[in-house]
Amino acid sequence: MEEELAKVTVSIITIGDELLIGQTIDTNSAWMAQQLNAMGIWVHRRVAIGDVKEAILEALDKEGAVSDIVLITGGLGPTADDITKPVLTEYFGGKLVRDEITYRQVMEFFESRGLPTLQRNVDQSLVPDVCTVLHNTRGTAPGMWFEKNGRIYVSMPGVPHEMKGLMEDHVLPKLRDYFNTPAVVHQTLITSGMGESFVAERLIDFEAGLPPHIKLAYLPAYGLLKLRLTAQGADKVSTAAALSIFFHQMKAILADIAVADQDIPMAEVIGRALIASHKTVGTAESCTGGYISHSMTLIPGSSAWYSGSIVSYSNEMKMQLLGVQPATLNTYGAVSEQVVLEMAAGALQRLKTDYIIAVSGIMGPDGGTPEKPVGTVWIAAGSVGNLVAVKFQLRYDRYSNIQLTAAYAMNELRKLIV
Amino acid sequence: MEEELAKVTVSIITIGDELLIGQTIDTNSAWMAQQLNAMGIWVHRRVAIGDVKEAILEALDKEGAVSDIVLITGGLGPTADDITKPVLTEYFGGKLVRDEITYRQVMEFFESRGLPTLQRNVDQSLVPDVCTVLHNTRGTAPGMWFEKNGRIYVSMPGVPHEMKGLMEDHVLPKLRDYFNTPAVVHQTLITSGMGESFVAERLIDFEAGLPPHIKLAYLPAYGLLKLRLTAQGADKVSTAAALSIFFHQMKAILADIAVADQDIPMAEVIGRALIASHKTVGTAESCTGGYISHSMTLIPGSSAWYSGSIVSYSNEMKMQLLGVQPATLNTYGAVSEQVVLEMAAGALQRLKTDYIIAVSGIMGPDGGTPEKPVGTVWIAAGSVGNLVAVKFQLRYDRYSNIQLTAAYAMNELRKLIV
Repeated sequence: MEEELAKVTVSIITIGDELLIGQTIDTNSAWMAQQLNAMGIWVHRRVAIGDVKEAILEALDKEGAVSDIVLITGGLGPTADDITKPVLTEYFGGKLVRDEITYRQVMEFFESRGLPTLQRNVDQSLVPDVCTVLHNTRGTAPGMWFEKNGRIYVSMPGVPHEMKGLMEDHVLPKLRDYFNTPAVVHQTLITSGMGESFVAERLIDFEAGLPPHIKLAYLPAYGLLKLRLTAQGADKVSTAAALSIFFHQMKAILADIAVADQDIPMAEVIGRALIASHKTVGTAESCTGGYISHSMTLIPGSSAWYSGSIVSYSNEMKMQLLGVQPATLNTYGAVSEQVVLEMAAGALQRLKTDYIIAVSGIMGPDGGTPEKPVGTVWIAAGSVGNLVAVKFQLRYDRYSNIQLTAAYAMNELRKLIV
Repeated sequence: MEEELAKVTVSIITIGDELLIGQTIDTNSAWMAQQLNAMGIWVHRRVAIGDVKEAILEALDKEGAVSDIVLITGGLGPTADDITKPVLTEYFGGKLVRDEITYRQVMEFFESRGLPTLQRNVDQSLVPDVCTVLHNTRGTAPGMWFEKNGRIYVSMPGVPHEMKGLMEDHVLPKLRDYFNTPAVVHQTLITSGMGESFVAERLIDFEAGLPPHIKLAYLPAYGLLKLRLTAQGADKVSTAAALSIFFHQMKAILADIAVADQDIPMAEVIGRALIASHKTVGTAESCTGGYISHSMTLIPGSSAWYSGSIVSYSNEMKMQLLGVQPATLNTYGAVSEQVVLEMAAGALQRLKTDYIIAVSGIMGPDGGTPEKPVGTVWIAAGSVGNLVAVKFQLRYDRYSNIQLTAAYAMNELRKLIV
């Protein structure tokens, strides 16, 4: 929040009723903010409004008054609920004309698919004559770059991969040319096993000693606490060097709970350790239903260290695919230390990996009993002859319980191998 | 957007640098909007700002001027980057006092875990003396309800499950008592297999004939197009009845591409069909790495129709766990019609389910070849002796390719069973 350097500020306006009624979660804004932040441009406001002319005009006025850059997403599709383009044309005082490049793209898009071209598709090539057209290689709605009273306004479609293409191909390079921004550098330490307030207590002196251009933020995530240091300065190299000193001070204070030096997913922490030791891991999942496997395989290149998973959602599958003994299931129940250890041992044998993670639990909303309420989870991790099992009691909704179980399970393995 | 009835309007203010720098995706706003919308309260603005006193004060002024209700999330944790509570105390002209119930909760929370209680935790029980305290059973930061100039302001923590608990236990019931809102009814038809503009072309006459209090929105999703009709009226029953007539007209026009009458996930469409026919399904996943299995098991009660998955991420696993022939892998490669059909057949035999979905593809960013570029996907679905295989060519990033492959694969099965 320091004011040593003039800051270039951005407002993001997202247009669309689907965002306001909660049908769509806005993932665009976070991505845009990350990209802009990395080049020292600061998103200080995000506003979501509906497909209403007056609301769009008012937001353009208001955000243009407080920000250097106004980025607008949404409201550019081919169907009738889209009114953004006419409103922008009116606001910037132009008229709609055909953009030939976009026109040819639209025609080719439909011809190459053997589809007829409808008037509403052709109309996507109409643009205000007062904008710079940003050509969209991933869809038929072009981006539009306007300048007015020293402010920049950019309108883009709301489809994430189209917006991202336009940002990468046009908007970010143009903004980089336009502004001479301060350098902003982040470095994040991931910790595990200690609550936010206890970490804060340990860091009291460290935090009090931070210079005004370095800021510490506490970001709790599933089973983890991320500590992000942010520094701002005139150039990237010296700012990063200054930040690095404080980062290593902080890391030394928290050495016993540090998980990673970078803001990377837990699965990637595991993957890096496995690559370094030339080992592999597999999973045997019941209650997480494939979510741990999904988390692992989201990491590009994970096939080098991740072999596969047996998702034994039913008891029959636990016996057939993992060799869990019927007697163990009958005596202890599917959610038990004994069963999760047999799942782990059976999976190690069948998947032939060096390490294994196995989970069995009750994620809710139904299926709980007085002895084993919803949220009871057994996790096993380790290698042949060296398996540990731990129990957790969660208390959230089904989706959160699944995510948290996956985070805890991966952390158990991490503790064994990192 | 009709103005026949006085609308109760909401602004949502989210506070926190982590939302602005893109470290956190805001899922709270969508959930809040859904809940409010269901009781006829309309979120017309969402604003995200940083942990900055001036920005918070300005947002309170601005949003209080244009909305009946201002809901504030975030900025209430125990660590030093949180400034929301002092700012609210100043804005509403009170002073901070201890709330005894919250104080006891905080003390019990730490004592029951055998942890010392820090001053910063005790301070979470301080609240402005000009608010109604909303007790938080899921965490240590209480909610706060303020009234000023006929407007309602509610401050809640940003942790999703704490916010949800406060909304369900306190905020929604109190708002229901406070306002006499119009009934808002939505009904959504899910379609598949036809582009947005072609569907819009078919619906031209239907849309032109809609009365002013009924609105149609086009909401594209992975592999699907959702068509949402929204009606507003004086009471819920008559409004729903009026909407239903138009919904069935629309459904008749789109009968050939209709997937579901409700806005439910594709996995739930499949689950309902399987429950009705007493059948089961399993999956054999390579490139989706467990994401299809995760989608199935996210549905509560899915154990009734979903048995499990073999995630054969490596070629060795495809042979060992699914019985894919080495010669098939050598001759055609892992991403081929032949291999995906052998995966499906092998999984049917081993999982002993009635139906199967199998996928193999290249999700990127690496692993593509000139013959099989990134985004090449083979999908097989069906039952013993009745398997179909289809190829798709995707062109997005890794995560989107995984989600889209899962959506296409589930849709192939749906076409066979619904």
